[in-house]
Amino acid sequence: MIRIAVDGMGGDYAPQVVVEGAVHAANDFSDLEIVLVGQPDALKRELNRHKVLGGKIVIREATEIVGMGDSPVAAIKKKKDSSLNVCIELLKNQEVEGVMSAGNTGAAVAASTLKLGLLPGIKRPGIAISVPTLHGISIAIDVGANLNPSPEELYQYAIMAEVYARCILKKKRPSVALLNIGEEESKGTEVLKETYKILRESPLNFVGNIEGRDFFTGKVDCIICDGFVGNVVLKMSESLLETSVALITRELKKNPITLLGAWLCKPALAAIRNETNYEEAGGAPLLGVNGPVIISHGISSARAIRNAIRVCADLVATRVNANIVEGVSQYGNGSTRVESKTS
Amino acid sequence: MIRIAVDGMGGDYAPQVVVEGAVHAANDFSDLEIVLVGQPDALKRELNRHKVLGGKIVIREATEIVGMGDSPVAAIKKKKDSSLNVCIELLKNQEVEGVMSAGNTGAAVAASTLKLGLLPGIKRPGIAISVPTLHGISIAIDVGANLNPSPEELYQYAIMAEVYARCILKKKRPSVALLNIGEEESKGTEVLKETYKILRESPLNFVGNIEGRDFFTGKVDCIICDGFVGNVVLKMSESLLETSVALITRELKKNPITLLGAWLCKPALAAIRNETNYEEAGGAPLLGVNGPVIISHGISSARAIRNAIRVCADLVATRVNANIVEGVSQYGNGSTRVESKTS
Repeated sequence: MIRIAVDGMGGDYAPQVVVEGAVHAANDFSDLEIVLVGQPDALKRELNRHKVLGGKIVIREATEIVGMGDSPVAAIKKKKDSSLNVCIELLKNQEVEGVMSAGNTGAAVAASTLKLGLLPGIKRPGIAISVPTLHGISIAIDVGANLNPSPEELYQYAIMAEVYARCILKKKRPSVALLNIGEEESKGTEVLKETYKILRESPLNFVGNIEGRDFFTGKVDCIICDGFVGNVVLKMSESLLETSVALITRELKKNPITLLGAWLCKPALAAIRNETNYEEAGGAPLLGVNGPVIISHGISSARAIRNAIRVCADLVATRVNANIVEGVSQYGNGSTRVESKTS
Repeated sequence: MIRIAVDGMGGDYAPQVVVEGAVHAANDFSDLEIVLVGQPDALKRELNRHKVLGGKIVIREATEIVGMGDSPVAAIKKKKDSSLNVCIELLKNQEVEGVMSAGNTGAAVAASTLKLGLLPGIKRPGIAISVPTLHGISIAIDVGANLNPSPEELYQYAIMAEVYARCILKKKRPSVALLNIGEEESKGTEVLKETYKILRESPLNFVGNIEGRDFFTGKVDCIICDGFVGNVVLKMSESLLETSVALITRELKKNPITLLGAWLCKPALAAIRNETNYEEAGGAPLLGVNGPVIISHGISSARAIRNAIRVCADLVATRVNANIVEGVSQYGNGSTRVESKTS
């Protein structure tokens, strides 16, 4: 059995949707047990709306709630008994093996980093996301934890992404690329040029720079970028799909023939939506902290929550963190490579 | 009459497609004359394939060609008689009023900056693009000329975008926003926080930060960002549309009913393609240099070239550069604001 703590009060539609997603996960996956953390009355009321297989969900009290707009560090220090803090404490005390929260992202990053600490050799955590492409799933890191990563930190992200792609996406020798404004080694900022050198000399399967146009084509398995550009790209791509659908719908409705055509296309479009939907990807792993933590979109649906809990359990089952530690000791962490050159 | 120099040898499909686009522009717009710059034999051969209204296109010889992969500064210094260099010289000598090139972007930026100089008060040029949104056209700057702009430079981009939106997009009081990872003033890098302060105290219609999700919704008229994130976003958005179409086509072909549906939808999808197509936007103005210069996509079609030449003429006709100079003297250029505070 894998025990996962779920932040019952985190997210735009908490606790209703979070509890519903947790129930689906508990019922659908026989290897899972869930500790639902939050205000017991609210959680029980939601749980009573569903049938749960015996003993698969237990409630753990937390009296406070971190709001979506709360300042991360203040939230951790002032709301010690928040559902988020209690989840992380449970993980730290090994009462659970992983945590899933759809709440305040900054607070989840700060609480995980401060309470769990970082894996040996890792200097900053990074948020990774699964990217649906024309050729399966790729992984991109970082999408918002670290706005100004150093070359060493970007190299560490590359190692973590490579391990994740091997363990979770089951890729044999994942390819790694830097997101840049041109493919040539001479392109981009000084930080990227230095990172390029470190990656080129590393044992990773580094294939060079990719441009924005290859983000969704599946050209590479692991896309490495700073948290600023990663965050903008992530939010933009979600919006661009929505904008495209809105534009298409507006245009199709102008004419009964195109409207009929749209109706006939529906099953195919639904299939694409499933393939590319963030709900299926199931949350973003916070890599580099000493314990499996999944951060989900604040607007997550019950299905997205269920899948995020599944991914969290997969992080546990495939021992991603142990593999990252092994990766760092095997490949170096970027700074040890530089030090060994100067010594 | 407005005389525009067209770089006949610049672009992936030059000279064929560039000449075709120039012919369309010359024939379609009665107020335009075109100076086609490049190797006379090649240009004449292409021109002979088309009918051109009398005297609307003249050829100017340039013996060399800047390749798409040439290093920008080397290209300018070593290939003095390149079609790009000659175009810029014609503008400098006031033999033409504007330049359009679909060639090497870096070389066009470097040649324009070095030969034409910058407008008074402007420290760095920026490449602007027209963004098709749910509510008309917005403008984004910079998309690749300046990877690490200072707060003052970002403020100058805001002024230039605001002037462009007034003169070309005919917006009364254009709204200006910073592209950031959150809407709060406290979000983002130190450079963005400082830029936020300068913009907030400026006379511009500054509406705060926008996130990636609002890039294509038309929430604001002018989107200000550094050239790295702008370049990645631009290339990614082009690719995301293509990837979506490829995914949809693949799915629709699986089944005769959805295929029929797709056929019925075709006219509506074509209408959308027209609305959102980069061809209609017609090239990217290089703002801040002392002379109207339009840079077009290397893969530009003849229609894109035609429209880019039209936009170049509009820059001339609406006196965008004179208006930028006036804007800077009226609003300050960011650094004068800072200086006046400390003195």
